[in-house]
Amino acid sequence: MAALSPLAPERFPELPPIAGVRLAAYAAGIRYAGRNDMMLAELAPGSTVAGVLTQSTMPGQPVIWCRECLPHGTVRAIVVNSGNANVFTGRAGRQVIESTAATAARLLGCEPREVFISSTGVIGEPPPADRISAALPKIIPLLDAGAWEPAARAIMTTDTFPKGATATATIAGMRVRINGFCKGSGMIAPDMATMLAYVFTDATLPASVLQPLLVEANERSFNCVTVDGDTSTSDTVLLCATQQVRHAAIASPDDARLGDFRRALSGLMTDLAIQLARDGEGAEKFVTIEVTGADSDRAARRIGLSIGNSPLVKTALAAGDANWGRVVMAVGKAGEKADRDRLSIAVGGIQIAAQGGPVPGYDEGPVSEHMKGREIRIAVDIGIGQGCATVWTCDLTHGYVDINGSYRS
Amino acid sequence: MAALSPLAPERFPELPPIAGVRLAAYAAGIRYAGRNDMMLAELAPGSTVAGVLTQSTMPGQPVIWCRECLPHGTVRAIVVNSGNANVFTGRAGRQVIESTAATAARLLGCEPREVFISSTGVIGEPPPADRISAALPKIIPLLDAGAWEPAARAIMTTDTFPKGATATATIAGMRVRINGFCKGSGMIAPDMATMLAYVFTDATLPASVLQPLLVEANERSFNCVTVDGDTSTSDTVLLCATQQVRHAAIASPDDARLGDFRRALSGLMTDLAIQLARDGEGAEKFVTIEVTGADSDRAARRIGLSIGNSPLVKTALAAGDANWGRVVMAVGKAGEKADRDRLSIAVGGIQIAAQGGPVPGYDEGPVSEHMKGREIRIAVDIGIGQGCATVWTCDLTHGYVDINGSYRS
Repeated sequence: MAALSPLAPERFPELPPIAGVRLAAYAAGIRYAGRNDMMLAELAPGSTVAGVLTQSTMPGQPVIWCRECLPHGTVRAIVVNSGNANVFTGRAGRQVIESTAATAARLLGCEPREVFISSTGVIGEPPPADRISAALPKIIPLLDAGAWEPAARAIMTTDTFPKGATATATIAGMRVRINGFCKGSGMIAPDMATMLAYVFTDATLPASVLQPLLVEANERSFNCVTVDGDTSTSDTVLLCATQQVRHAAIASPDDARLGDFRRALSGLMTDLAIQLARDGEGAEKFVTIEVTGADSDRAARRIGLSIGNSPLVKTALAAGDANWGRVVMAVGKAGEKADRDRLSIAVGGIQIAAQGGPVPGYDEGPVSEHMKGREIRIAVDIGIGQGCATVWTCDLTHGYVDINGSYRS
Repeated sequence: MAALSPLAPERFPELPPIAGVRLAAYAAGIRYAGRNDMMLAELAPGSTVAGVLTQSTMPGQPVIWCRECLPHGTVRAIVVNSGNANVFTGRAGRQVIESTAATAARLLGCEPREVFISSTGVIGEPPPADRISAALPKIIPLLDAGAWEPAARAIMTTDTFPKGATATATIAGMRVRINGFCKGSGMIAPDMATMLAYVFTDATLPASVLQPLLVEANERSFNCVTVDGDTSTSDTVLLCATQQVRHAAIASPDDARLGDFRRALSGLMTDLAIQLARDGEGAEKFVTIEVTGADSDRAARRIGLSIGNSPLVKTALAAGDANWGRVVMAVGKAGEKADRDRLSIAVGGIQIAAQGGPVPGYDEGPVSEHMKGREIRIAVDIGIGQGCATVWTCDLTHGYVDINGSYRS
């Protein structure tokens, strides 16, 4: 197990209960010894669900299953295991899914399609066929409304800390809660989805409203974080609403009374996304890349990700080297409209380059000082339009090379 | 200076003279102490030229200059310096180009637009305004028809060995020669072009024929190599023909008599491209990725580059870990058509996965043995079409992190 990320928050936040949600963690012996590797979330009857899933053409069996279940819009359980991703596992992998859903449905008294499943870990190894189903009768008695941190810990792989967040919002005058947790450290470059993340609210919202809210919040949170540019086969975000707070009925995602909820959801998901970057494999520095003045928001994000995924930028960051020429390179290769003579770059709030060259009298001293810190801010103004985006990432260190050379052993 | 790549060829090949070409290397004191950092190639009057240049939206001043000169189709000199890329250097950078071209033109008796210029090294630092022009009168007396290796060495930056290749071909019954050399080690992910490469032939071919031949050969050579996925701002390949072998006139790139030349040019450029991957920053292993059965050749190349650029695949390669699940991930994120149940993967000629899962009875032993070697072969069959491509790359090691954390210091 890797040492705790130097960018970790001080502690896991205090997550209050969400009416209609109970959680449990269990050591099912899937791969890791001496730690919980399975998580169950049980939801009250009538809970609704929305989801975004990886755009990979090689999705894991659990992703395929979730995609089949989502159109029904209801959820009673989420079963997650770490240690084996159940990806590229053929017919055997599908059987594990079907038996897990059937067993959980029987024990909880629901339909199999209301049992959502995720798996994370090694790709291409046969999943432990019986251990998950065998563990279900043992994990159910452990269900508890306060077990947020154990649940967040049970789904970790190379993560060095559990990731959670909580928020409140008002819908039509009634206060609702949102809790969420996620995992992810490597193979992080979400493409319309992310690594595993689970968000719960006690609001009374139909799946048809949850889904567009989730997609919108996802665009500016998980879809703006990268560790290594490698999009996972297992990316999954589920948003569940237990319908326990009986505010006025909301039938449309465009209802003005959703404004506060929309803001809170987006903020919570951004918090979780930032925690992913802070726990990037081998990360020593947390990096915020703000892109403004691009041709569109989408162009701004692509430019930000081009900077955030560049191995040359990331190794310079690791070394604390203010090598801003590599930022120019990354803007240039992004494939989006840009004009050398309008580009400007600032690091740590200090203007470095503008109008096609270094700013007159540029003094590298204060920039180098900023680069020595744990939190680096890069601001790039493309100077041609109104598009903007913020991307979060981390540096590329010897730790990343070590962790990923030894992951399976 | 980094230690010699363990993947380096035994020696620089014997490059014979090309009638109409003379070369020289010189220590102009641009950045490095105690080594040559400037190269001049002089070409006979009437020499033609074709070129492909970086698609970056932040091209260097020399790339902009070459783009302006190419339509004229003639070349009398190529001036290259290492140590400073003259990229993002504003008006001062342009002045260096213009004074270099003017000085060389005056000394060699040609037009400034016949003087092609390339620069490689640090981005965003003011170029040494006078050193290149001042060096020109001193380098001209050194011109020599045999100075291929010194020329190839003078353009190196983080390269650990000079890269050259030679070939012969027959055009309309007459034998012609082709020599080429190139540099590049990091920031290697050519996009319709490459790092610096210079190819010379004594054939009598107009620029209008050279250009399509160059583009075609480039597609399957330099455009299929990657070290780190970072496309340079300076990528330049020039192909010059000195018109010294007076074979029958060729007016069209589709002339059947060009078949042998086409094959030889493509082979020579592939040889040079492979040398780039063998000298990838920190490289310990040379990797050949063969993609077959894709929707198109272009799709096959994109899938091959997705595998070759994946930090997770490359760190596993560095560790000698046959973690083929990461190859599945990289195919999945490539954005090209694929079907999990038709994909098959082999490493070192040993079939690992097919039909959506590991092959029955798969024994990792011989694959692990292959992974310990210096030369790794990954073969991926997408199983849905006829498209194919071969991509060359190297592993991602601690050496890469070290080299790129200390490049400017």
